[in-house]
Amino acid sequence: MDNIKNYVQQNKERFLNELIELLKIPSVSADSAYSQDVINTAHAVKASLEKAGCDKVELCETPGYPIVYGEKITDANLPTVLVYGHYDVQPPDPLDLWTSPPFEPVIKNTELHPEGAIFARGACDDKGQMYMHVKALEYMVQHNNLPCNVKFMIEGEEEVGSPSLAWFVERNHEKLKNDVILISDTGMISNQQPSITTGLRGLSYVEVEVTGPNRDLHSGLYGGAVANPINILAKMIAQLHDENNHITIPGFYDRVQELSREERGEMAKAPFSLDAYRQALDIEDVYGEAGYTTNERNSIRPTLDVNGIWGGYTGEGAKTVIASKAYAKISMRLVPDQDWNEITEMFTKYFESLAPKGVRVKVKPHHGGQAYVTPIDSTGYRAAAAAYEESFGIRPIPVRSGGSIPIVALFEKELKSKTIMMGFGLDSDAIHSPNEHFGIFNYLKGIETIPLFYKHFTEMSK
Amino acid sequence: MDNIKNYVQQNKERFLNELIELLKIPSVSADSAYSQDVINTAHAVKASLEKAGCDKVELCETPGYPIVYGEKITDANLPTVLVYGHYDVQPPDPLDLWTSPPFEPVIKNTELHPEGAIFARGACDDKGQMYMHVKALEYMVQHNNLPCNVKFMIEGEEEVGSPSLAWFVERNHEKLKNDVILISDTGMISNQQPSITTGLRGLSYVEVEVTGPNRDLHSGLYGGAVANPINILAKMIAQLHDENNHITIPGFYDRVQELSREERGEMAKAPFSLDAYRQALDIEDVYGEAGYTTNERNSIRPTLDVNGIWGGYTGEGAKTVIASKAYAKISMRLVPDQDWNEITEMFTKYFESLAPKGVRVKVKPHHGGQAYVTPIDSTGYRAAAAAYEESFGIRPIPVRSGGSIPIVALFEKELKSKTIMMGFGLDSDAIHSPNEHFGIFNYLKGIETIPLFYKHFTEMSK
Repeated sequence: MDNIKNYVQQNKERFLNELIELLKIPSVSADSAYSQDVINTAHAVKASLEKAGCDKVELCETPGYPIVYGEKITDANLPTVLVYGHYDVQPPDPLDLWTSPPFEPVIKNTELHPEGAIFARGACDDKGQMYMHVKALEYMVQHNNLPCNVKFMIEGEEEVGSPSLAWFVERNHEKLKNDVILISDTGMISNQQPSITTGLRGLSYVEVEVTGPNRDLHSGLYGGAVANPINILAKMIAQLHDENNHITIPGFYDRVQELSREERGEMAKAPFSLDAYRQALDIEDVYGEAGYTTNERNSIRPTLDVNGIWGGYTGEGAKTVIASKAYAKISMRLVPDQDWNEITEMFTKYFESLAPKGVRVKVKPHHGGQAYVTPIDSTGYRAAAAAYEESFGIRPIPVRSGGSIPIVALFEKELKSKTIMMGFGLDSDAIHSPNEHFGIFNYLKGIETIPLFYKHFTEMSK
Repeated sequence: MDNIKNYVQQNKERFLNELIELLKIPSVSADSAYSQDVINTAHAVKASLEKAGCDKVELCETPGYPIVYGEKITDANLPTVLVYGHYDVQPPDPLDLWTSPPFEPVIKNTELHPEGAIFARGACDDKGQMYMHVKALEYMVQHNNLPCNVKFMIEGEEEVGSPSLAWFVERNHEKLKNDVILISDTGMISNQQPSITTGLRGLSYVEVEVTGPNRDLHSGLYGGAVANPINILAKMIAQLHDENNHITIPGFYDRVQELSREERGEMAKAPFSLDAYRQALDIEDVYGEAGYTTNERNSIRPTLDVNGIWGGYTGEGAKTVIASKAYAKISMRLVPDQDWNEITEMFTKYFESLAPKGVRVKVKPHHGGQAYVTPIDSTGYRAAAAAYEESFGIRPIPVRSGGSIPIVALFEKELKSKTIMMGFGLDSDAIHSPNEHFGIFNYLKGIETIPLFYKHFTEMSK
């Protein structure tokens, strides 16, 4: 398949320019002011799939933004790859921190991207990574070497929690039938060390409110005599971890899959420097659950973090007040086989039980999602690993990510197939932040690697 | 001294009108927009003292607003009473919660004040209570029955922490020489049960900052692997009290004066309903240090309260962030003989020691003041008790207040005399809040009681 390398080199400028055109449309799904731009982007993606060689492309209506569906079915007896991606982007704020306007893409060199990177909102997440799949299809169709069937499902609401996707998937089992789902919406360790994301953590996000007296009180006159909601909230939060930083919620770990010594050994092979990690964050030491390494703590172990806290007087100077209420936002990252609904219930029950009589507690669940793990002996994983090894010349490392992509668990449940997360971005790409970018090396390497996946997957499926 | 009752009744309307005129001047010391009004108020107080019969009245320059000084020395061999008060007021905000404009005084009846109360900023704190002393002097001078010498020291910066007062007192020991200091800037239990404030708590107010990683992090990618400053801050705050709600700072209680069983027995005689207290605050139960009653907890015991806390994402909805920093404002109420500077140091040292390696901690002292207790066997206290008993027909109860008036400790240190806090306000007067008011009954009863104090104090001093 040396052809693909040549094809990418010959068409490099066009591939970049096409992506740049797509990045110019501000498809911010969170802000209704951009709704026409979001719809225009769906049409642009549809047109690009038609041009790349899909036989059938359509905009599927949903309760929200349309889902772009495309397919090229060559032979019903061959395996089918379902590509998932999204054409919407995060809001670009804060605008003043961008060094160039978020929807006027420019190519700049960086230390990690000496050959240049495209700076624009959505460059990596996910227009750039999604478009790699369109260009890979173009190559295979033009060279008549698409070895299997392919379907595309590109949605426009990923950045707002994919509210219409479940609705669509549940109603289209037959249309979406596939043998493997392929997503490029994650990252890899570095351009020298490819990796495949094999796990995502689940999530339970709640907000808590602790109410003491019915009004703010003078801390001189009431201090010491009534429960202070802020002190109580602090005390309750403190009790959520024990001295080994284990989470104390009864039953919390009951369903947690413990990894075997072999699996942990495999993980430990990923290149990692604790010194560099500490230096990058300017911390004297890491902190976490006893008995686990840093990379285990942020991937294969469930965690509990306060994401925000507030109460009482927070202005300048001093005010001697006992607040009536104190609040916190708390999220738990979950691992297989924890169920986020069950965990939310456990948290609520336990948190309420920690409150002394002098306060009342409310726990409001925000949202959540299930964790997901791909086995590394599946056909999909082995095909992906072979593809990376062929294009990068080095075997990829399986990596469990600490983040959460709730739809992946949904796909497995509804469509009964495994998802392979072939990400080509880097942690430093600043997705969701100002100055998002995507390396040209990464973009082109993605286009080069994807047809290899199709080839290996089809061969291994025989 | 039945004369005083008659005099008050005959001059009631004039006394009210004079106070109302004083209340119309918005002497907000915290806001420089009102500086001319503050100065105008100083002049008005000076004029009122001259009119009431002081021999010598002057505006004493300070680094801030002037101190109004007045005196009437009848005989150097007689005792001297130094009256302290303040002519500045708290800012009136939030204005929209006032039922009538704060600087347009009106008289309205309330449940606790069926004979009417003056509603205005400063009505009780402290223009109304300060002006009682001016009118009491007027009576004594006109009736030629001032039994001793009197000095007035009325400042204009009490509501901003009296920054110029120490400067002035230190430089004027001779001028301010006295046998007892008299202040009406506190309250009493009720119009049926007078009380004398015999204790004030000290204060140490600090702000703490906990810093973890050098930037906000994605809680999915870093959650569980680094110290979360909010979780750590909660844990540190939780450790400041033990399971009996004793404060855990080493040495914190070393200097605390324990009250004798007799003294606690006296305190317990003050009318108090735990049910009514709980109901008024809408709490199921009180909460505090084991081994002490509610009234002990908020007066004779030192306490530690978080007055404000903030960090991370506090907007609507959810953001999965690990904050770089978390903050809290923490105040400790102190009792004799705790030293606020020493306590601030102890807190700082202990709080820093609670931090794990993954975070850095800063403790910034805000301000503080010493606690104060008046013995109930001093001449001043006995004279005040006799005065209340004569005018109210019932013996006043000594009460230790949980609040703090740092200048009282300063007076004792610099001027070597005891302070008697003859307050006539009620807790319900809403000082520092919208709709501050002062009962007409209380205002007139104050004018009536003060000359009785002079009489008893002079007699008891013989």
